[in-house]
Amino acid sequence: MGSKLTSRSTDYSKWYNELVVKADLAENSAVRGCMVIKPYGYAIWEKMQNELDKMFKETGHENAYFPLFVPKSLFEAEEKNAEGFAKECAVVTHYRLKTDPDNPGKLIVDPNAKLEEELVVRPTSEAIIWNTYRGWVQSYRDLPIKVNQWANVVRWEMRTRLFLRTAEFLWQEGHTAHATKQEALEETLQMQEVYADFAENFMAMPVVKGVKSESERFAGADDTYTIEALMQDGKALQAGTSHFLGQNFAKAFDVKYTSKEGKQEHVWSTSWGVSTRLIGGLIMTHSDDLGLVLPPKLAPIQVAIVPIYRTEEQLEAISVKVNEISSQLKAKGISVKFDDRDTYKPGWKFAEYELKGVPVRVAIGARDLENGTLEIARRDTLEKKSYQQEEAVEVIEALLHEIQENLLTKALGYRKEHTTVVDSFEEFKEVIENKGGFVSAHWDGTEETEDKIKEITKATIRCIPLDTKEEEGVCVFTGKPSNKRVLFAKAY
Amino acid sequence: MGSKLTSRSTDYSKWYNELVVKADLAENSAVRGCMVIKPYGYAIWEKMQNELDKMFKETGHENAYFPLFVPKSLFEAEEKNAEGFAKECAVVTHYRLKTDPDNPGKLIVDPNAKLEEELVVRPTSEAIIWNTYRGWVQSYRDLPIKVNQWANVVRWEMRTRLFLRTAEFLWQEGHTAHATKQEALEETLQMQEVYADFAENFMAMPVVKGVKSESERFAGADDTYTIEALMQDGKALQAGTSHFLGQNFAKAFDVKYTSKEGKQEHVWSTSWGVSTRLIGGLIMTHSDDLGLVLPPKLAPIQVAIVPIYRTEEQLEAISVKVNEISSQLKAKGISVKFDDRDTYKPGWKFAEYELKGVPVRVAIGARDLENGTLEIARRDTLEKKSYQQEEAVEVIEALLHEIQENLLTKALGYRKEHTTVVDSFEEFKEVIENKGGFVSAHWDGTEETEDKIKEITKATIRCIPLDTKEEEGVCVFTGKPSNKRVLFAKAY
Ligand SMILES: [Zn+2]
Ligand SMILES: [Zn+2]
Repeated sequence: MGSKLTSRSTDYSKWYNELVVKADLAENSAVRGCMVIKPYGYAIWEKMQNELDKMFKETGHENAYFPLFVPKSLFEAEEKNAEGFAKECAVVTHYRLKTDPDNPGKLIVDPNAKLEEELVVRPTSEAIIWNTYRGWVQSYRDLPIKVNQWANVVRWEMRTRLFLRTAEFLWQEGHTAHATKQEALEETLQMQEVYADFAENFMAMPVVKGVKSESERFAGADDTYTIEALMQDGKALQAGTSHFLGQNFAKAFDVKYTSKEGKQEHVWSTSWGVSTRLIGGLIMTHSDDLGLVLPPKLAPIQVAIVPIYRTEEQLEAISVKVNEISSQLKAKGISVKFDDRDTYKPGWKFAEYELKGVPVRVAIGARDLENGTLEIARRDTLEKKSYQQEEAVEVIEALLHEIQENLLTKALGYRKEHTTVVDSFEEFKEVIENKGGFVSAHWDGTEETEDKIKEITKATIRCIPLDTKEEEGVCVFTGKPSNKRVLFAKAY
Repeated sequence: MGSKLTSRSTDYSKWYNELVVKADLAENSAVRGCMVIKPYGYAIWEKMQNELDKMFKETGHENAYFPLFVPKSLFEAEEKNAEGFAKECAVVTHYRLKTDPDNPGKLIVDPNAKLEEELVVRPTSEAIIWNTYRGWVQSYRDLPIKVNQWANVVRWEMRTRLFLRTAEFLWQEGHTAHATKQEALEETLQMQEVYADFAENFMAMPVVKGVKSESERFAGADDTYTIEALMQDGKALQAGTSHFLGQNFAKAFDVKYTSKEGKQEHVWSTSWGVSTRLIGGLIMTHSDDLGLVLPPKLAPIQVAIVPIYRTEEQLEAISVKVNEISSQLKAKGISVKFDDRDTYKPGWKFAEYELKGVPVRVAIGARDLENGTLEIARRDTLEKKSYQQEEAVEVIEALLHEIQENLLTKALGYRKEHTTVVDSFEEFKEVIENKGGFVSAHWDGTEETEDKIKEITKATIRCIPLDTKEEEGVCVFTGKPSNKRVLFAKAY
C-alpha cells in the first residue's frame, strides 16, 4: 500500500507507473525493458485470454505452437517484414557458456559454441510459420488454415513502459491461410470485429475500427486494420491489429496450392494480434486517483467482503453469515474474497480493494448482524449503501452488471467529448495541444503531409475509420482536395 | 494419412517418430531441435494445462510471468544451478540486425549493437525469480509465496526427439518461498503428489513416486522428488519433478525475512515442473501399431461419428439423427466430431480416427436408420458392437469411463510384469538387457557404483521409491551392505 498515488492531473504518466506497481500488477525486472507480471496482473491477463480464446475457437480457430527462434535466413525472406523488425531484434549467437578461466565461479560465453546461423528471437512469427505452412499446404483441401498461437515475443524497444511497451511481451498471434483474396479479407475484418467486440463488451473500452494509413501499416502487410481506443489523458492507444497480408508471405516462402481446377496458386493470408498492452489500456481507460477501476467481467476478484469486529465471537458469527452469502454468489459464478486476515485493519483493507479496483466491496459488522444488514460499496462511483442481507446476492449481481455498463457509458461519453471535427490547421493544433483526443480532419492522402503534421504536432493518423463518410473537403494542412475525414491523435 | 506405421516390435523408436508426425501432433522445424506443436498435439497440451492449472489453484497457487532472459550475472549467482545448465544455454549477445552492405536484401548482426551483458534464454527460472522475490519478501507476513508460471524454456540439447527432448519446450514451473524448512518440504511432497494424481487419473499413466539419488538431482536442489513412468519398450520416463531447494537460492540471492520474533532468516524454497514431455509419455504408454490411443479425459475429440451413405437424402436423414445424439452428448460435456466431409470415404475416416486415438468411433448408415441402430467401436480394444440408437448416449458415456479405467489397468499390469526384483548383478544385466523395465535392487549408496552400473548396463537409478521398505541386503554390484532397494532402468 504505502503512500497515496500521484493524481492524474498532476502527472498522468507518473500516476500510471505508480498505479501499476502499487496495485501489484507488474514491475520492472533486472532485464532492461522486460517486466515481471505479478499474480494480480496476470490474473487479469488470464481472464482476457479465456474470453479471447473462446471467441477465436467459436470463429473456427485452433491453437498451435511454433518455435521461439527464427533462423536469420528465414527471417529475411519477406523483405519488408524483415526490414520493419530488424532494428529491434534480440539475436542468439551462441549455445553454451563455460567457466571463466580467469574468474572462478563466473561464466563466459564459450567462443567455440558459436552458431553457424544466428537465431532471431521472434518479434512476430510470420516467417517461421509461413516456412512451416509450406509443408502443410498442397491442395485446396488443405485450406483454410486458421491457427492461433499464445506466446511471448521480443522487440528491443528503447523506451519501455510497463504493459504499454516492453521488450518482451505476451500476446496471441493468429495466422491464417486462404485459397482466395476474398476469404482472407473477410477473415481480416472478422478478427478486427472480434477484437472490437472484446474491447467494448469485456474491457468496457470503446474503440474506433479503421484501417491504417500506409506509413502506419504492419511491415509486410497490404493493409492493417486496427482498433483504436482513447485514454483519459487524450492520447490514443492502438489496442489490436488485423493484417491483410495479401500473397506476400506465400510468395516469400513459396506456399502454393493446387486449386479444384488443377491450377497452382499462391495462398492468401492474414495475421492478427493483441497483447498484454491491453492491460495498459484497461488501466488507463477506467482508473482514477484512488487506484484501479476494473470492469467486473475482467476483475480477478469481483466482490471483496471485509468483516468489522472486535472479538473472536463476533468474527465467527460474521463468518457464518458471510459464508452463506459467498456460496450463493459463487454458485452464480461470481468470484468472492472474504478477507478475514487479522493482520490488517478494515480501513486498510478498504483502501487496498479500492487501489486494486475490486468492483464491489461489502462490509459487515457486529451491529449489522443484529440488524440483518450489510454495507455495499461500488468502486466505479464510490457510492455506499446499506442493504438487507437477504437481498445482498440479488443486489450484488445487479450491481456488477450495472458497473460493467456504466464504465462503458462513461468511456463512450469521454470519447465523444474528446472527438473534435476540425477544418483548419490552427484549430487542429489548438485541439491537439490543449484538449487532446481524436481529431477528425481532412487529409490529402500523402505520406509527406502525414509526416509534416506529425513533426509539428506529434499527432499521427490513428486510422481511417471504417464508417467514415464520403465528404468533399480540403486537406487541413495542404488545402488539397480530400474526400473523407481521418482520425488523428497523439498516441501511445 | 499415407502408409502404415512401422510396428513397435520392428523398431519402437521409429514407430514413435512416425506416429507423432502422422497423427499430426508435432513436427521438426527449421530451427535445430525445436518442434512445431500442431493443432491436434496442442489440443492435448491444452487439456493437460487446464487440469493441472485447476489442481495448482486448488492447492493455493497463483500464476505469474517472469522474463524470458536472465542476465548472465544473475544466472551464475547460484553456482551449482549455473554449472548444471551452462553447457546448454542459448545466449543473446546482440539486439539489432542491419542490412548487409555487401549483400542487398540480406541482414547481418549489427556489431554496434552488442549487449553490455549477455542474456541467457531461461533454461529454468530460479535465478530471475529469486532475484525478484528479494523485493517481495520482507516479513513473515509476505510468506508463503506460491507462484506458478506457464512458459517456454530453452536447453540446447544435442540429441533431440519430438516432445521427449527438444531444445525449446513448453512447461510450467512452480516457485515457492516459505518461512520454514518443514513447510517447504511439505510443499515439495504435495506437488509430487499432484503430479502423480494427474498422471494416473488423467493420463492413465501409473508412476512410481520416489526421490532421486544425488547424481540425478536438479542442479541447485537439496533433494529432487520425481514421478517415474514405464514405457512399452521397457524404458523409464521421468515425467515430473519437484525440488526441495533448501535455502540455496535464498542465500544466493539474499532473500531474507523478519520472523515474528524479529529475527532475520533466509527463506526456504521449492520448484517443480512438468513439460510437453508428458505428451511423449502419454503416447508411449498407450498407443499401438495402428496409432495413438488416448485416454478419454485428455482426448481432444472423445467421439467421432462417421456417416455411411450413398445419396444426399441418406446423408440428410443420418445427419438429423446424429445431431440429436451429438447434442445429448455435448450436454454431458462430451466432445463430439461429426465427420460429414464428402472428400473422404468412411474407411479412410475410420483409419484416421484410429491413427488419432479417438476413444470412441460411431458409424451410422442408411440401413441403421431403418433398424434404429448404430455401430460403436472402442479404440483401446478395437471392439465393435451394434446398439440401439436410444441407448447410444448412455453406452458412450459408460464406455468413455471404462476406456479410461482400462488404460490405467493395462498400464499397471504392464508395469507389474516389468518390475523385477533382482539380487545378483548377472540377473540385473540379464533383465535390463532382455526384459527391460524397472529393476529393484540393493545399492550401496555411492555415486561410484551408480556410475559403474550405468557404464556397463546403461541403466540408471530412476529413484528411491517413497514406499521402499527397510530391508537388510547387499549391493547388487559391490556386495557392500544396503538397507533398501532402489529402482533402476534404462531411461528416456
Ligand atoms: Zn512462389
Ligand atoms: Zn543472505
